[in-house]
Amino acid sequence: MKKDKFNPDYSAKNGLFDRRSFLKASIASGSGMMIAGAHASEDKIRSSWMGMPGEGMGESGPSEYERHIKRADIGSQPGTVGSGASRTPIQFLDGIITPSRLHFERHHSGIPNINPDEHRLVIHGLVDRQLSFSLEDLHRYKQVSKIQFLECSGNSGAMISPEAPQRNAAQLHGLVSCSEWGGVPLNVLLDEAGIKPEGKWIVASGADAAVMARSVPLQKIMDDAIVATHQNGEPVRPSNGYPMRLFLPGWEGNACVKWLRTIKVTSGPSMTKDETSKYSDLRDDGISELFTFPMEVKSVITSPSPGLNLSKKGIYQISGIAWSGSGKIKKVELSADGGKSWAEAQLDEHVLPKSLTRFRSAWMWDGSDSSLMSRAIDEKGNVQPRRDTWLEGKAVNTFYHYNAIQSWAISSGGEVSNVYL
Amino acid sequence: MKKDKFNPDYSAKNGLFDRRSFLKASIASGSGMMIAGAHASEDKIRSSWMGMPGEGMGESGPSEYERHIKRADIGSQPGTVGSGASRTPIQFLDGIITPSRLHFERHHSGIPNINPDEHRLVIHGLVDRQLSFSLEDLHRYKQVSKIQFLECSGNSGAMISPEAPQRNAAQLHGLVSCSEWGGVPLNVLLDEAGIKPEGKWIVASGADAAVMARSVPLQKIMDDAIVATHQNGEPVRPSNGYPMRLFLPGWEGNACVKWLRTIKVTSGPSMTKDETSKYSDLRDDGISELFTFPMEVKSVITSPSPGLNLSKKGIYQISGIAWSGSGKIKKVELSADGGKSWAEAQLDEHVLPKSLTRFRSAWMWDGSDSSLMSRAIDEKGNVQPRRDTWLEGKAVNTFYHYNAIQSWAISSGGEVSNVYL
Repeated sequence: MKKDKFNPDYSAKNGLFDRRSFLKASIASGSGMMIAGAHASEDKIRSSWMGMPGEGMGESGPSEYERHIKRADIGSQPGTVGSGASRTPIQFLDGIITPSRLHFERHHSGIPNINPDEHRLVIHGLVDRQLSFSLEDLHRYKQVSKIQFLECSGNSGAMISPEAPQRNAAQLHGLVSCSEWGGVPLNVLLDEAGIKPEGKWIVASGADAAVMARSVPLQKIMDDAIVATHQNGEPVRPSNGYPMRLFLPGWEGNACVKWLRTIKVTSGPSMTKDETSKYSDLRDDGISELFTFPMEVKSVITSPSPGLNLSKKGIYQISGIAWSGSGKIKKVELSADGGKSWAEAQLDEHVLPKSLTRFRSAWMWDGSDSSLMSRAIDEKGNVQPRRDTWLEGKAVNTFYHYNAIQSWAISSGGEVSNVYL
Repeated sequence: MKKDKFNPDYSAKNGLFDRRSFLKASIASGSGMMIAGAHASEDKIRSSWMGMPGEGMGESGPSEYERHIKRADIGSQPGTVGSGASRTPIQFLDGIITPSRLHFERHHSGIPNINPDEHRLVIHGLVDRQLSFSLEDLHRYKQVSKIQFLECSGNSGAMISPEAPQRNAAQLHGLVSCSEWGGVPLNVLLDEAGIKPEGKWIVASGADAAVMARSVPLQKIMDDAIVATHQNGEPVRPSNGYPMRLFLPGWEGNACVKWLRTIKVTSGPSMTKDETSKYSDLRDDGISELFTFPMEVKSVITSPSPGLNLSKKGIYQISGIAWSGSGKIKKVELSADGGKSWAEAQLDEHVLPKSLTRFRSAWMWDGSDSSLMSRAIDEKGNVQPRRDTWLEGKAVNTFYHYNAIQSWAISSGGEVSNVYL
């Protein structure tokens, strides 16, 4: 095979191609196997499954050869089946959409089986008119749809451990997913209810047995909050809040109350159990920060990552996801030498606000020990911090909103592991 | 309830709100029910499912109350289970993404159960180097991802019947879906194989028992064709070509060969059975048009539509999908009086090239007989034609590439039916 298409115009050390050279050069990986003989005979490459008609239509799921792609690391509180979390297998996915069956879960008392004909959303408190909406009622109001990420504020919390935990990308960072969310802007419903002048916050509560409840400033609700009834085109699934959930673009997942049942307009935060006993961030000066809603700028390389080892020297495609609760991703930088030099990654076509963004780069691995890192920067200029910077000022065991740069070590044998740099 | 928020600034006759007034006015539908009493008691609206912990995590699919949302109108050739089509239930979906489980199907000999370790993509014919790629090989090449529609050229073909067929939106127009497609740009692989100067077309063939094969001009392949390995984030499903399919943005579905097995570079079209016995468009002068690849500008109102009847006078949300194989949708116009007057619809946030676009409008139904129509216009200036215009010059029974304006009649009883206007 001719090798003259390879254009080793590396802009960072240790084999990383820059976005510009990645676009300019057609970087052939040379992985295709050459076939001997003047003419490939199509008959010679017939396979057994071509000898008979295939399966029928209608219910086909994923391939039986991809059964390892499922929600990962499902863990519940002792004695329960539904009080805990499951994670998106981000290391096996590509692009920006998360299939709904693989969206992460974080429930406080399992998934209620709600009959939509009986379910109501009630708006009350400091309003002129208390209103009750069925699912059918909601469909009579203006709807919107938009592709946006949802992240649990506890995502990546294991990274505060003194020793780098040896887990895979899903187990470490899989409490983030991205969907097309559709529903009714909440400002339309609140305008209809009429907010009294003293109304400044709301408290949203769910129809689960835990009655999950979070206070949210009214401003956010009026800006861009929706009552989400659809996810990726279809009705939201029970594990994501069927028949309706609160969705707050860019804000932490627990505030996006699932199985949304009531919205009470209040003059201030309600200090529910779910925002005092947890979802607050203790500092090392003993002060606890409450209502830290927006999710930070963040990225992680999903391939390679632990479990997806390299088999031999040569060109690899680095791929990963970046996101920010503040808007669009502006750029993602990559390092293959532990942060000494950086190259700019290529972003896929759709760079949408408060959505996952897919980044990629070609990397020529020379077979030596290497360290891969990604650093995301959003349109507001927020830069993903180093781990030691993130830890500054936090109390011991504080883990919400961890967004530091992730480093993967590649051994000379091609094994990928989690490492603190 | 105060009604002063209603602002009947209709820009078309028969109750249609224009995009501008839709944005300006907060159009409350007034569907929320007022609750008596000074304070709504949250305890009074507790439901049975709040009394005990819910289901566990991990495998949760759609709600049992949404089981009617499934691939529709599954029909096979007599004596087969996999030679036919199933349709996307577009009338029950919202937004632009089609969940992969609901993507339409059109198979010629069922769904092969392919072991990806044994499958190879072979590039041969007028090339310098014949190459063979495993799925693992492909992952070593540059990848891209993009949200794009896929439409069968036979979609909406029933609309050539002399009498308007009384079927629902899925049955009439459900051979269109929209996914995030990810994979390797085919120009990268063909550059590596090296195209001989006389190479001007390719013929792509599938690993199904029908060995589906279509000729495609080389220019399209080099422009934007991909070997798709991912759909909506996960590996393409067997019913969509696992482990890899050809994807030609904006071009008819049958040319996007599933279970892609060979790409042969040729000097001209190969005249396969699949492009001579079908997928050719007979004109009334006896000439058959071949290789009519791009899909036309098109739209359909998905709600209301047959089966989704109106229950009472008042405000309804008209919603639908528009798309064009030539690029972005520029605007969608709506009529509620059978085409006499038109208002501009509101488009959802993501207006992407060669993707579904979601459009909406509020409509005040006064309870009288009405006719709803949508007319899409793309960025190239293509306008969706009327049915009689579309039929001009076509031979009897020619039905591929039907893209005329769809009219739904609303009876005074609220029943929705298919009608020719």
